[in-house]
Amino acid sequence: MSLFLTVDAGGTSTRALVHDSDGTCSGYAVAGGGNPTASGVESVAKAIRSAAESALRQAAVEPAEVGHALAAMAGSATGLTGVERGLQQLGITAPLHLGSDLEAMFFSGTAELNGAALVSGTGAAAIVVRGGVTTARSDGRGWLLGDVGSGYWIARRVARAVTADLDGRGPRTALTEALLAAADVVGDRSAGKDVLLDQLVTTLYAIPTPGIARFAPLAFEQAGTDEVARTIVEGAGEGLADTVTALAGPDRTAPLIIGGSVLFHQTALRARVTELLRDRGWTGPVAAMADGTLGAVSMNLRSAGVTVDTALHEYAGKSLSAIRSRD
Amino acid sequence: MSLFLTVDAGGTSTRALVHDSDGTCSGYAVAGGGNPTASGVESVAKAIRSAAESALRQAAVEPAEVGHALAAMAGSATGLTGVERGLQQLGITAPLHLGSDLEAMFFSGTAELNGAALVSGTGAAAIVVRGGVTTARSDGRGWLLGDVGSGYWIARRVARAVTADLDGRGPRTALTEALLAAADVVGDRSAGKDVLLDQLVTTLYAIPTPGIARFAPLAFEQAGTDEVARTIVEGAGEGLADTVTALAGPDRTAPLIIGGSVLFHQTALRARVTELLRDRGWTGPVAAMADGTLGAVSMNLRSAGVTVDTALHEYAGKSLSAIRSRD
Repeated sequence: MSLFLTVDAGGTSTRALVHDSDGTCSGYAVAGGGNPTASGVESVAKAIRSAAESALRQAAVEPAEVGHALAAMAGSATGLTGVERGLQQLGITAPLHLGSDLEAMFFSGTAELNGAALVSGTGAAAIVVRGGVTTARSDGRGWLLGDVGSGYWIARRVARAVTADLDGRGPRTALTEALLAAADVVGDRSAGKDVLLDQLVTTLYAIPTPGIARFAPLAFEQAGTDEVARTIVEGAGEGLADTVTALAGPDRTAPLIIGGSVLFHQTALRARVTELLRDRGWTGPVAAMADGTLGAVSMNLRSAGVTVDTALHEYAGKSLSAIRSRD
Repeated sequence: MSLFLTVDAGGTSTRALVHDSDGTCSGYAVAGGGNPTASGVESVAKAIRSAAESALRQAAVEPAEVGHALAAMAGSATGLTGVERGLQQLGITAPLHLGSDLEAMFFSGTAELNGAALVSGTGAAAIVVRGGVTTARSDGRGWLLGDVGSGYWIARRVARAVTADLDGRGPRTALTEALLAAADVVGDRSAGKDVLLDQLVTTLYAIPTPGIARFAPLAFEQAGTDEVARTIVEGAGEGLADTVTALAGPDRTAPLIIGGSVLFHQTALRARVTELLRDRGWTGPVAAMADGTLGAVSMNLRSAGVTVDTALHEYAGKSLSAIRSRD
């Protein structure tokens, strides 16, 4: 019986999992993140190859034993060749299926084939799923044009608010001390604002886009007591609710899966978005997922003809949790 | 008597001028733009070398006849080596002086040594000048962290508003048709929003940062009749006024020089900023300049010990205008 290699590639990290058709997981590994639009297909292919290699090693599985390979990733259509070549170099002969990272998030939260997903990690987007396929999407247009309420969107506002504060153009904010500490800017305050600002500018421009997303948590840490941070977080919540509201033709009684590193870890933001969507008539069950790994498993199994019902989904989820908690 | 080579390097274009100590101009050329922070020092050095070479050729001057060379540019401290090497390769043996692009804008508008300048082109910043040197600055922190009211800032808002409109997340705006036309996105509207959006996304991400600034004029063209465009332009005006207001220790009765490609060409924006600053107690004369070339001439002359009074400033300005209107 051939094995399954399932990959979930996100902007923050890439996860690879070896499992069988029952959903029993035998190898799991995590590598760096990558986004085909932002950082190029090669970086994504490299992260996927690295995670896959480690997962196979942990499972003590030969690459040739993999009969079904699937990678869920953003901008999936563009990345096939590089990713497939990377896996072939490992000795994997099974054809690679590519899937949407947003669908993977949806199928992580439910065994249902209808509903919607909202993701905010480095980027942000929402989709409608009907009959197991995406029928509408909203946002997910990247750091320049969209991703409202994403980690990059939040962190960019933090960085601009801090710059304006130091420059005397904007209100004082506790985000300033927080960002200077997080970015390791340890300038001499008595040397004047421009010295400190020059250091901050140099540090932040040296981070490849959209890497400043790593500073998004600062906004949530300060939002309880700082007005500038509170406004940024509130804007993120409203923007993410608007992204869902703009979806064409959703079933508001079907499951809504909410995930991504920002929405999963920032429970207050998730509660706020859920509250806004309840006000707008979303009555279906809401579930939160950290990432799309379990959904990618469902997609890989289904693409091999396996029926993924609630029982199998639940079992695979437990097996995935168990292998993740090893160490 | 040795000649002067004066360069004014901006984000949009780079100008080189050959002149003598009386301010009589004999060669003038324009090359592409460049910003040391955004596009690397090499691109700036290349543009400066190209413009200088053409200006020398037009003036029929041997590089060795140049006794005084000065380049005004953003982030001047970091760019010296590459720019100087480029000019040496042309055969220019005179030591290169580097000056601030913002000071060049100030000295373009006045022969005075005290006042302030506000620039909005690809980027945006303000300075206070006292005794001929910059004593305070505000903003100018680049596309990621600042440049409020700049061409990039405006164009980014235009692009995001258009993306949100097409995506159904934001209000309808006339900017959408305008940007699709300007960016040569000629998709089939009946194919659905995602096809058109994918084309726009691909086109705009392919433009190196901060090159989308070229679309800023669309906001001004639509601001008379479109609410989204009007809000963007109004925000730019208020942001630029705030940038001036945040300056430490300005003399509000001294000249205020306003320039850069956005503030020079968009007269309604300039009028609005001036009005806001009048309300905030700026009573000195306000003059508008397209670029900093004349000011860079003043800086080059002064650094060679020439006294630049109002008569010389005016004469050099007329000579520069005359050589620019040739063709």
